Amino acid sequence: MAPAHACHRHVMLSGNVYRTVSDRCWDVPKRLADFTGMGLARQVLSPMPELLSYWLETGDAQPLLRYINEQTAGMVAAAPDRLVGLGAVPLQDLGLAVAELSHVMGVPGFAGVEIGSNVNGVPIGDPRFDPFFEACDALGAAVFVHALRPAGMDRLVGPPPLQQVLAYPTDVGLAAASVLTSGLMKRYPRLRLAFSHGGGTLGLLLPRLEQATRVFPALGDLPSPSAQARTLFYDTLVFDDATLRYLILLFGASQLMVGTDYPFNFREEAPVARLAAAGLDPSVQVQLAYRNAERFLGLDAGLR
Amino acid sequence: MAPAHACHRHVMLSGNVYRTVSDRCWDVPKRLADFTGMGLARQVLSPMPELLSYWLETGDAQPLLRYINEQTAGMVAAAPDRLVGLGAVPLQDLGLAVAELSHVMGVPGFAGVEIGSNVNGVPIGDPRFDPFFEACDALGAAVFVHALRPAGMDRLVGPPPLQQVLAYPTDVGLAAASVLTSGLMKRYPRLRLAFSHGGGTLGLLLPRLEQATRVFPALGDLPSPSAQARTLFYDTLVFDDATLRYLILLFGASQLMVGTDYPFNFREEAPVARLAAAGLDPSVQVQLAYRNAERFLGLDAGLR
Repeated sequence: MAPAHACHRHVMLSGNVYRTVSDRCWDVPKRLADFTGMGLARQVLSPMPELLSYWLETGDAQPLLRYINEQTAGMVAAAPDRLVGLGAVPLQDLGLAVAELSHVMGVPGFAGVEIGSNVNGVPIGDPRFDPFFEACDALGAAVFVHALRPAGMDRLVGPPPLQQVLAYPTDVGLAAASVLTSGLMKRYPRLRLAFSHGGGTLGLLLPRLEQATRVFPALGDLPSPSAQARTLFYDTLVFDDATLRYLILLFGASQLMVGTDYPFNFREEAPVARLAAAGLDPSVQVQLAYRNAERFLGLDAGLR
Repeated sequence: MAPAHACHRHVMLSGNVYRTVSDRCWDVPKRLADFTGMGLARQVLSPMPELLSYWLETGDAQPLLRYINEQTAGMVAAAPDRLVGLGAVPLQDLGLAVAELSHVMGVPGFAGVEIGSNVNGVPIGDPRFDPFFEACDALGAAVFVHALRPAGMDRLVGPPPLQQVLAYPTDVGLAAASVLTSGLMKRYPRLRLAFSHGGGTLGLLLPRLEQATRVFPALGDLPSPSAQARTLFYDTLVFDDATLRYLILLFGASQLMVGTDYPFNFREEAPVARLAAAGLDPSVQVQLAYRNAERFLGLDAGLR
């Protein structure tokens, strides 16, 4: 990182400024000070997705990800009742990924890992990743899928932020759809898998995919995509009350949990207040605010 | 075309079967016989998108599209009170496209044209297409945007139909977003532009795009994407009642109109009955069933 304005640093990748971030990325007391205003009791820390480094040689990626996991472990250890960690694993090498997963799951305070929506262009539902998901299943690791190096970049007309704004949710939607069409949850029914940004565009792909299973013989054996989708988790990071209510209808009130993108600029400032503002039943607010996250993270069963 | 089973033909492209289609594609009496069961009084004919042929040399594309337009004109002339035509234009050459548009708009029974969601990978909001949209604006031509050769193909895990099922709505969503981010409707506010498949994934991109205009200085001058989206038209072809109601909330009851994908396999069988089944107010059903389509097509002002 390189110095930037007060309390900020430039994240440098290959000598260029990738993103300018606030010290709330690594300063635990400052994070905790923000809890009250945001209505939070606990946060889950996950790596900035671009750091997942699937495109690096494994000899470079593995030590970098180990370093990131150690930093996350240090932050969680500083506030073990307030912070939970998600690790990073080098999915460009499934053997190394499983090894790092096993390591991370032995470190106090980790609930699982964050992975990208694709690995060097291959969506995460592709069966080649089964050994990794089998290990997640065996170890009880929660898997949070975040957009990364998305599809659709050549369909954008406008400034660079449109990557995050439009292509990220597009890639998350296609990644979630790939999980449904490959039958990943049929192979590993205990897997706990969550998708960023409300599942991106999945919601609007789902009814069409459901109808397609009734029309195309090649899709006739697919377990109901809508039923499958109700076994996945999603965050609430959609910035719109009507959209949140629509996702609850599609995915079920048991599958959504607060997401923030904190502390980046493009974040939800009042994630808990939004649940009330959206006019959700108090019991549904409790589910979305923490009950579902406890289930996804395995906190209900007791974190190591 | 090559013979297939009874009442069907294979559409042959470069010597391969592209799709097997029913004779309802070209048999006007058979189409009209289906009106009653579908609850229809009038249909709009548009070319099978793959025939738009943006990837052909213009010397091949222009005569092919002219032939298609002549076939459409012949069908419309056989039932001028029941059928309306949308033409095809070679958008790989804007001069030829404007010339064919002018020709088509002089043929009785044409309300406008169908175009692809992208032209050889360039989304239709790109300002390079402004001369075409300027001509549409000047001629009062309705423009129906249908998915074509979509982005996201490398993110699919499953059989070939997933192109239509998942990548088509993805590409339509990104195409509609490109119209919003490029400010096309600000440049041509009278333009009448409609998107297939309920706008594809646009609905779930829109709240995030709206929030982005408040966060990213580079997007700060963009006219409200949500307000812009309420000036575009969309079809109702989403196969789900909750989704249809969500789109009405987002886009407005004045902007949706019945779509069918008739007579292809992956179609809506009872498009009008679905409006009632979705629990829409009778006045909204009237808007979606024909009032909005009349406005989009310019039928309210009287078709030539």
